[in-house]
Amino acid sequence: MKKEKLTVIKVGGKIVESSDSLQQFLTKFAKIEGYKVLVHGGGRSATALGTQLGIESTLVNGRRVTDEAMLRVVTMVYGGLVNKQIVAQLQAIGINALGLTGADLNYMRSEQRPVKEVDYGFVGDVKEVNAGILSNLIAQGVVPVLAPLTHNKQGSLLNTNADTIAGEAAKALAQYFDVTLVFCFEKKGVLLNEADDDSVIAQLTPNVVADYISKGIISGGMIPKLENAFEAIDAGVNQVIITRADLIHTTQGTTITK
Amino acid sequence: MKKEKLTVIKVGGKIVESSDSLQQFLTKFAKIEGYKVLVHGGGRSATALGTQLGIESTLVNGRRVTDEAMLRVVTMVYGGLVNKQIVAQLQAIGINALGLTGADLNYMRSEQRPVKEVDYGFVGDVKEVNAGILSNLIAQGVVPVLAPLTHNKQGSLLNTNADTIAGEAAKALAQYFDVTLVFCFEKKGVLLNEADDDSVIAQLTPNVVADYISKGIISGGMIPKLENAFEAIDAGVNQVIITRADLIHTTQGTTITK
Repeated sequence: MKKEKLTVIKVGGKIVESSDSLQQFLTKFAKIEGYKVLVHGGGRSATALGTQLGIESTLVNGRRVTDEAMLRVVTMVYGGLVNKQIVAQLQAIGINALGLTGADLNYMRSEQRPVKEVDYGFVGDVKEVNAGILSNLIAQGVVPVLAPLTHNKQGSLLNTNADTIAGEAAKALAQYFDVTLVFCFEKKGVLLNEADDDSVIAQLTPNVVADYISKGIISGGMIPKLENAFEAIDAGVNQVIITRADLIHTTQGTTITK
Repeated sequence: MKKEKLTVIKVGGKIVESSDSLQQFLTKFAKIEGYKVLVHGGGRSATALGTQLGIESTLVNGRRVTDEAMLRVVTMVYGGLVNKQIVAQLQAIGINALGLTGADLNYMRSEQRPVKEVDYGFVGDVKEVNAGILSNLIAQGVVPVLAPLTHNKQGSLLNTNADTIAGEAAKALAQYFDVTLVFCFEKKGVLLNEADDDSVIAQLTPNVVADYISKGIISGGMIPKLENAFEAIDAGVNQVIITRADLIHTTQGTTITK
């Protein structure tokens, strides 16, 4: 049976934490045809609330160290403030949104990250995705809005990177749908020339990427992003697109396939 | 067709805001047989977070005045902190919980309360309950956990009293289920003698209540509670029980029927 198309879009906090840019983004999100899932960040708002409460944010390799006080902050900000504001604004434009953490419907279970060089605290590595009920809801027209929080099924929420949530949700939903995973990025896509914002590489495959990395064309923070993309594709996701948030409703950006 | 039994339980913030009493309460909640919905408050935590952020809480007739800053606070506390903690703890005891505000699935739409003697700000009066998807989820074994927040379907969340949420959800779900609505209370039930905590009136009907009110046996804050109960019963709810949070899994308390 031919699977229906589903687009899983991950957007960073910067876009969704300001009400103007959120509004603009959601208008474009609404234009994407077919079934949809939205995954959001919210780190800036978490840092801001933490500061107001005298709770300092510590980031190691871009990941937030999450002690008990910070877990309360991210639960409030990611699960409450950012998530519910997005849901309310989507409902206003006729999209039947449903905000979720991994604890809701037990859709994403994780385990607290083992302490190695760094003790990240209440940060979860994803272990299990239960996409069954979620896929039923999507097929009924519901648009899940996923906050970057999972749970350990032992009563604790765990902070989890939004890119990871998007990748894991996309992989699990690929069982039910023909999934396109979209990562929003500051640039229009993967660039052939870092200095030229218009030098977007339209298509990438693992072989081409390996070649570009060896030649130093692709480097730095883009490498883990592409590794995530390949992992998703290996696990059944049809294609991954890296594009700018204001272009999600167009065909622009870099498309990564097997 | 015979409807299946559904119990809608409203519990106040005092129980769910302390992790010890929450744990105890949820263990008892788990013992209730059949389909279930949990509705929670969280006012003390909202007041506490507001104080930490320098946002003062103003209550008029027990209702919170909700300006924009306070709406952010209650969105974080009710929709995030309290709701998601309950969901995570229910999942830990094998209950497939799903935390919701009225914006989620557009299940409860309200309108901002008109300004009369008091401007309550972002407080919503319920106008529409869409219980369809909710009832499907319940029939699949999902336990909705309802935060005291609704939305106006124009992009804004609105603060809404948890007793009202419980009553409106119970009434709408009565279309699909044989609904018992349970209000948790500090006492074991409606008392015949205020000074005697064991003088619980086991059964009440509108006629008996009218008689008790005229004789002064029932007075004060219990009257609006009972009016809510009668309204729910008039709208198709099978019975309303007023009991103490630690007795929800027993048959103790006051049962109100038509």
